[in-house]
Amino acid sequence: MGKKLLAAFSFMVLLFPTLAFADDATPVQLQGAINAVWVMLAAILVIFMQAGFALLEAGSTRMKNAGHVAGKTVLTFGICAIAFWAFGFGLAFGDGNSFFGTTGFFVTGLEDQAQRAFGALSGSDVPIGIKFLFQLAFAGVSLAIAFGGFAERAKLPVYFIFGLLFTIVIYPIVAHWVWGGGWLSKLGMQDFAGSTVVHLQGATAALVATLLLKPRLGKYNKDKTPNLIPGHNQVLSVLGVFILWIGWFGFNPGSTLSAMGDGYFGYIAMTTNMAAAAGAVAALIVSWMYFGKADIPSMLNGVLAALVAITAACAFVDAWAAIVIGAIAGIITFFTAQWFERAGIDDPIYAFSVHGIAGIWGTLSTGLFATPELAEKAGVGGAGLFYGGGFHQLGVQALGVFGALAFVLVLSYIVLMIIKAVVGLRVTEEEEIIGLDLSEHGSYGYPEQMKKSGNNSLSQ
Amino acid sequence: MGKKLLAAFSFMVLLFPTLAFADDATPVQLQGAINAVWVMLAAILVIFMQAGFALLEAGSTRMKNAGHVAGKTVLTFGICAIAFWAFGFGLAFGDGNSFFGTTGFFVTGLEDQAQRAFGALSGSDVPIGIKFLFQLAFAGVSLAIAFGGFAERAKLPVYFIFGLLFTIVIYPIVAHWVWGGGWLSKLGMQDFAGSTVVHLQGATAALVATLLLKPRLGKYNKDKTPNLIPGHNQVLSVLGVFILWIGWFGFNPGSTLSAMGDGYFGYIAMTTNMAAAAGAVAALIVSWMYFGKADIPSMLNGVLAALVAITAACAFVDAWAAIVIGAIAGIITFFTAQWFERAGIDDPIYAFSVHGIAGIWGTLSTGLFATPELAEKAGVGGAGLFYGGGFHQLGVQALGVFGALAFVLVLSYIVLMIIKAVVGLRVTEEEEIIGLDLSEHGSYGYPEQMKKSGNNSLSQ
Amino acid sequence: MGKKLLAAFSFMVLLFPTLAFADDATPVQLQGAINAVWVMLAAILVIFMQAGFALLEAGSTRMKNAGHVAGKTVLTFGICAIAFWAFGFGLAFGDGNSFFGTTGFFVTGLEDQAQRAFGALSGSDVPIGIKFLFQLAFAGVSLAIAFGGFAERAKLPVYFIFGLLFTIVIYPIVAHWVWGGGWLSKLGMQDFAGSTVVHLQGATAALVATLLLKPRLGKYNKDKTPNLIPGHNQVLSVLGVFILWIGWFGFNPGSTLSAMGDGYFGYIAMTTNMAAAAGAVAALIVSWMYFGKADIPSMLNGVLAALVAITAACAFVDAWAAIVIGAIAGIITFFTAQWFERAGIDDPIYAFSVHGIAGIWGTLSTGLFATPELAEKAGVGGAGLFYGGGFHQLGVQALGVFGALAFVLVLSYIVLMIIKAVVGLRVTEEEEIIGLDLSEHGSYGYPEQMKKSGNNSLSQ
Repeated sequence: MGKKLLAAFSFMVLLFPTLAFADDATPVQLQGAINAVWVMLAAILVIFMQAGFALLEAGSTRMKNAGHVAGKTVLTFGICAIAFWAFGFGLAFGDGNSFFGTTGFFVTGLEDQAQRAFGALSGSDVPIGIKFLFQLAFAGVSLAIAFGGFAERAKLPVYFIFGLLFTIVIYPIVAHWVWGGGWLSKLGMQDFAGSTVVHLQGATAALVATLLLKPRLGKYNKDKTPNLIPGHNQVLSVLGVFILWIGWFGFNPGSTLSAMGDGYFGYIAMTTNMAAAAGAVAALIVSWMYFGKADIPSMLNGVLAALVAITAACAFVDAWAAIVIGAIAGIITFFTAQWFERAGIDDPIYAFSVHGIAGIWGTLSTGLFATPELAEKAGVGGAGLFYGGGFHQLGVQALGVFGALAFVLVLSYIVLMIIKAVVGLRVTEEEEIIGLDLSEHGSYGYPEQMKKSGNNSLSQ
Repeated sequence: MGKKLLAAFSFMVLLFPTLAFADDATPVQLQGAINAVWVMLAAILVIFMQAGFALLEAGSTRMKNAGHVAGKTVLTFGICAIAFWAFGFGLAFGDGNSFFGTTGFFVTGLEDQAQRAFGALSGSDVPIGIKFLFQLAFAGVSLAIAFGGFAERAKLPVYFIFGLLFTIVIYPIVAHWVWGGGWLSKLGMQDFAGSTVVHLQGATAALVATLLLKPRLGKYNKDKTPNLIPGHNQVLSVLGVFILWIGWFGFNPGSTLSAMGDGYFGYIAMTTNMAAAAGAVAALIVSWMYFGKADIPSMLNGVLAALVAITAACAFVDAWAAIVIGAIAGIITFFTAQWFERAGIDDPIYAFSVHGIAGIWGTLSTGLFATPELAEKAGVGGAGLFYGGGFHQLGVQALGVFGALAFVLVLSYIVLMIIKAVVGLRVTEEEEIIGLDLSEHGSYGYPEQMKKSGNNSLSQ
Repeated sequence: MGKKLLAAFSFMVLLFPTLAFADDATPVQLQGAINAVWVMLAAILVIFMQAGFALLEAGSTRMKNAGHVAGKTVLTFGICAIAFWAFGFGLAFGDGNSFFGTTGFFVTGLEDQAQRAFGALSGSDVPIGIKFLFQLAFAGVSLAIAFGGFAERAKLPVYFIFGLLFTIVIYPIVAHWVWGGGWLSKLGMQDFAGSTVVHLQGATAALVATLLLKPRLGKYNKDKTPNLIPGHNQVLSVLGVFILWIGWFGFNPGSTLSAMGDGYFGYIAMTTNMAAAAGAVAALIVSWMYFGKADIPSMLNGVLAALVAITAACAFVDAWAAIVIGAIAGIITFFTAQWFERAGIDDPIYAFSVHGIAGIWGTLSTGLFATPELAEKAGVGGAGLFYGGGFHQLGVQALGVFGALAFVLVLSYIVLMIIKAVVGLRVTEEEEIIGLDLSEHGSYGYPEQMKKSGNNSLSQ
């Protein structure tokens, strides 16, 4: 064998790996495709959570408002999608300053696809179209939570205007702070999938709305004692909760924006699930002890509260800690819901207890339970108080909660007061009595069943 | 180092890539697996659309027919699956002539799995079992749309026979024309995921059926003015629409049959979502202006119309164009639905407006808005009128619409006239009054609620 | 070119593949990520089956029990998740003896993630968190099936205790026998996704429960003839069945624990779907011939029975055989359901017919129809009777059925007798008449509709 032949061989060999991939996908392309499929699945699951909220909220309110409650969810997700495409996505994730992004408006097409690099999301190889859908889904969840506080008495135009403004001037700002490279991000705040960014924000807006809208007719007696206004359909509520439960498998593990990392997203799915399970059991037992009856709506709220709480902590804590975090979330949500009700705050589907109190607890919990290994793996912040991290991380978490809460309280108040001045917030007493299906949409959601009930104005 | 050693080294190196992959997967295998997972997910989402149609159709019709309407969807998907396995898949995608395929009947197992190459689908490395399920899901959607036109008055045996014949002699023919290498495919018709193939076909059959079946009892007064027959459950309709919305994330992006291509499927998911959002908002506003009330069923139809329209165009247009296409779809569907109703055509769930008119608009829209870059990326046809492509693509699109419409009109008419002659199309007047739950199935879908209403024959 | 240069070249080349992957993912990592995404999707689909069971069971029972029936599904999945995490997973899949596993309790976090190897599941590269969720979902399905036999008359505490014990001392034992390296596994029993492990187990527990609980009040007349107690909402039942249908695309194809293997999981999805379709059509026709009416609940049971039957066989049989297996399942389930009812066994949602009889048939069917090629591909057992395998495989299948049935019969009986002794099994007659929503939870699932019906104690 001559030298030339050998050289030729070697040269061929050098080319071989390239040749092997000439028509084949490269590892980079393959990894990009895997991550794209995973985050697309996650985005679909989180978008499907709109159906979960529509069912939960409709099931937890009265028949005369059911078409309105379910239908407005479709409308507000539509409004949110357009506003988030135009402005919200860029404000949240664009390059910019510590407070908001200033690039990436009107997510354009193929160029961005090819580019992929985009502000705070440029570390991930998921295509921009899918990143956009995933983040839109989060904004949509936050907005759906906010609208829980408007239930059964807000005028339809309020949903249009608040939906627009929340998606543009409220949600993306806090999202930028924590996830978009803003000031809380720089401090190392651990909010993996948004106990604060998504849930506390939505819940705070719901609280402001429910305070400004005042309690529903008939909720309180003259002596200020509350009456129960039960939701009309627990089966729909249960279905809603299951849809939300599986939606959270997109919400939390999908926030890795990657299927690589040695199964990290699967680990996060497991902690998420353990928390939810613990929340269900804990809340049911607590309600049983408190009411003497195992209350189903309380249990459903317990599941959701646990999921809300584990949303911040899911990537940072052990499985047993997830169980503890979920169980505590289920319990404190139950008691705070009772307390708010007695305090004269009529939050029809307990949005602030479920998403706000549990959101605060969850955000703080990672400051307690974060393990050093997982904090390092996630690359955000450090260990929690119980794992030798001292009070540092807990302090950062508390600051993040305070910052988001204060910002959203003020902004929501301003936005709602403007809406109140311009178009008004609440339907008339007569409209509320006949129900928003008729008053806002001109037809019942359940026309045959409402007709049978005779005088609808008598239905609670 | 001697020459022999060097040679041996070189030889080893030559083998190395193969060795490295000896137990590992090759890039080709990895890509095949990624694409398989993606299209499997898409197929599952599109099959789940059957639940969406069952809920939408049941929610949009009356309580006395609800069990029938929902239940027959299960039956007809079952019939469709068997018929499409035996004949439809081969007729649509088998090798053959310009009009139908002649290979691939009775999709067999492992051999085809290994082979993968199969007619018009051989360009994709997705396993044949998944390709079959994905395409079956499309045929099932088209059939479910068609049955919208039969609602609340067709006999049960009609569903059996029409389901079989539509799946064998109607749907696969047009599918072959556009997607199976047939004459419209050769002309470069752009119908990415089936505005024409799936939606217009189903809607045209629905139109023929609704014309032959005649309006429901009580729909029209003696002076030919229409009465509203409201659906009984808007919450179920909303849930159905959300299931369909996420189903479309399989429908449109899944039609890439690939997760590779630098995020193309994610881009398509984004345009799909933007259109749906625009359709919801546009249709609600139009109904508000027209009726003086923000009508929820109109909004839901707007979402679906927008999704139907973007189905052809999703891969060819910019995000802003998707918004325009979706909004226009929502608006024209609203007005044509009103017009058909006034014209004496009782299409109970507006199948022809939502899937036919919007299907035509969507198919034409890509002839207007297709960008040269995206048309090239998709590898089908050229730029639209607004992007310097002149009238060529628009003409091809119009021809495709005309061809499909004419073929399905004629074939559906023939099939339905044969069924009418053999077993009859419509239940008796008495059966229609008591409802199809009792007449066709012997029990109410809602036995306790119907019992309470007393004399069922009085329910509208 | 000198020898040294050549040698340097060769050396570089040797390193090249490694270098190429220095920052890139290796084929092993890529494959692991693909499989993780696929099994995560499958786990989500199977967990979503809880919603399917909640809807199916609620829709198939009465309004006065609807909130209870749906709500307890959330509770029992929560209990199951915690118990399976602590004990069940290790008992089923841990290393151990022929009867149960003895390692892997309290699935711990990151260590296991990295390790991946774990007992009987160590052959798969799917991360342990996802394996756990997938297997938990199966245990949850088995438990949901079992609780079908408790419907409309068991006390709430029974759900707590039986849920715990079934998840710890019953389900994981049989799972270990067949899938965890136990004695049936060593014999080569073919139960791909659990016709016996999941369905027959759950159904056997349901049978024991329904026998011990005795028939519901009003089910049987004094002459022992049965009365029909129709479910209150067929639309919810249909939705439940569609959710279960797509859930089975996780259940069966996901049991490959891999997306590799040249499309094997897609093939399994296809056989699964064909069986379901055949079950729907066959059961509807049989009910039509038997009752004179095409009964929708019978058709829905036919779909599920077919899916249950194909669960064992899906990976081993041809597509045409899947159709045969599904059709036979639909038919025998129909007739055995009638027979049990006439024999005085009140199984409210036909759990033993749908999951038990069809589970037995499915487990045996692969002993008839397994092809040698597919048995080899799956790496479990051999060909069936009709494919030249003689009676060997059929004998193994029969032994497996017998073993599981006997074990679960005895264990369930013991567990339920203990529960009976300690807290009692059945609510009082008065509680059963007013309904479990009020008696166990203190509020109706449908408060507005139940109020309208006046005297609730008169509702059947």
